[in-house]
Amino acid sequence: MTPKAKQEIENADVIIGYATYMKLIQSVIKPETKMVSGHMGREVERARIAVMHAVENKRVVVISSGDAGVYGMAGVVLEVATLENAEVPIEIVPGVTAATAAAAKLGAPLVSDFAVISLSDLLTPWTAIEKRLEAAAEADFVIVLYNPQSPGRTEPLTNAHRILLKYRKPETPVGIVRSAGRDGEEAVVTTLEALLDAEIGMVTTVEVGNSITRVVNGRMVTPRGYDFLK
Amino acid sequence: MTPKAKQEIENADVIIGYATYMKLIQSVIKPETKMVSGHMGREVERARIAVMHAVENKRVVVISSGDAGVYGMAGVVLEVATLENAEVPIEIVPGVTAATAAAAKLGAPLVSDFAVISLSDLLTPWTAIEKRLEAAAEADFVIVLYNPQSPGRTEPLTNAHRILLKYRKPETPVGIVRSAGRDGEEAVVTTLEALLDAEIGMVTTVEVGNSITRVVNGRMVTPRGYDFLK
Repeated sequence: MTPKAKQEIENADVIIGYATYMKLIQSVIKPETKMVSGHMGREVERARIAVMHAVENKRVVVISSGDAGVYGMAGVVLEVATLENAEVPIEIVPGVTAATAAAAKLGAPLVSDFAVISLSDLLTPWTAIEKRLEAAAEADFVIVLYNPQSPGRTEPLTNAHRILLKYRKPETPVGIVRSAGRDGEEAVVTTLEALLDAEIGMVTTVEVGNSITRVVNGRMVTPRGYDFLK
Repeated sequence: MTPKAKQEIENADVIIGYATYMKLIQSVIKPETKMVSGHMGREVERARIAVMHAVENKRVVVISSGDAGVYGMAGVVLEVATLENAEVPIEIVPGVTAATAAAAKLGAPLVSDFAVISLSDLLTPWTAIEKRLEAAAEADFVIVLYNPQSPGRTEPLTNAHRILLKYRKPETPVGIVRSAGRDGEEAVVTTLEALLDAEIGMVTTVEVGNSITRVVNGRMVTPRGYDFLK
């Protein structure tokens, strides 16, 4: 958490967030702050509650994990405020997103061009996700997968794996990080071939190397192209 | 800067970084810390100096701006340590990268899938960059351009602009942020058509919307697909 995010949480009249994320910041929240815990999937409802309180001149903080601008609440809050003609100042506070938190744990997979793709097909049609996987794999981007799998949704990862293997060698390094940047963070470096054997859940970030990504001393490194002989 | 990064800088025996970045953190560095300022383009040299001091059991911090893992020093340090068979512990501390710092200033352009591409052709051949631009544009990724232009290097941005216009409408929202996340940060929302008219330099991040990115109350928002009528 950045000092700016911490400061905003400390100065808030109302804090709104998905219950799991509220627990992660409990130690920073002051006792007099009103807390509104929401449910996964009820993002529009949370944004409406936030705008409602802001219209009443309350200082409202809406929590996302990682960076609120990466698959987070930033967009829905801006959209709801506009739909409701609410003239309230809205500031987005950036954070450390799972892609870079996981990369740091894995080594340096993202020092070259990369693509970030969510495998959740709840809000995006699978055909669009598939097209992006094909394009990113073919153009040799390092690929970061968000929301790779949940107990009831395993088909997207199986499909993604099949697509990636069309363009990348089975031995391509793949990094798997659970709870990136949080307590209990765990990282494993495996191969594209063995990707589906890994334990992958809702809080897992998967990073697939490009054609030149290597494993160096147990860590994933995508060479940037420096000349080490100079 | 995250509290973890600040703590590492405070505890360092030696701090190594590109001179411009060293100035940005001067207030955090303790007087007794040895400072080694390097030149742009001498990344391998800086990594070697870092490894040399680490082998002597010094606590060494290598500085990148934004996130060290995104076009930063993380990779070259891991590579140099391995090449020199230096058995030193190396930790990568993640930060807020320009893509998300700029996105926060612009609104919420990155709440959907996005691709990060550096237009610097110093270390990556232009043909590879071009292929990635084509693929990302065709598959409707929001596109973040790092290192878009410098005084002596304007052709890549002109070429990128031409490629993007093959796949995106001229009125596609484009965000331009100078000094993302730093003092003096400035953001402008313009269109793809007018991209080349903007003032774009070394410390500028460019974010190009996808086919559904809109301007909402002066800010760039990529709709995530929520149903606001529910």
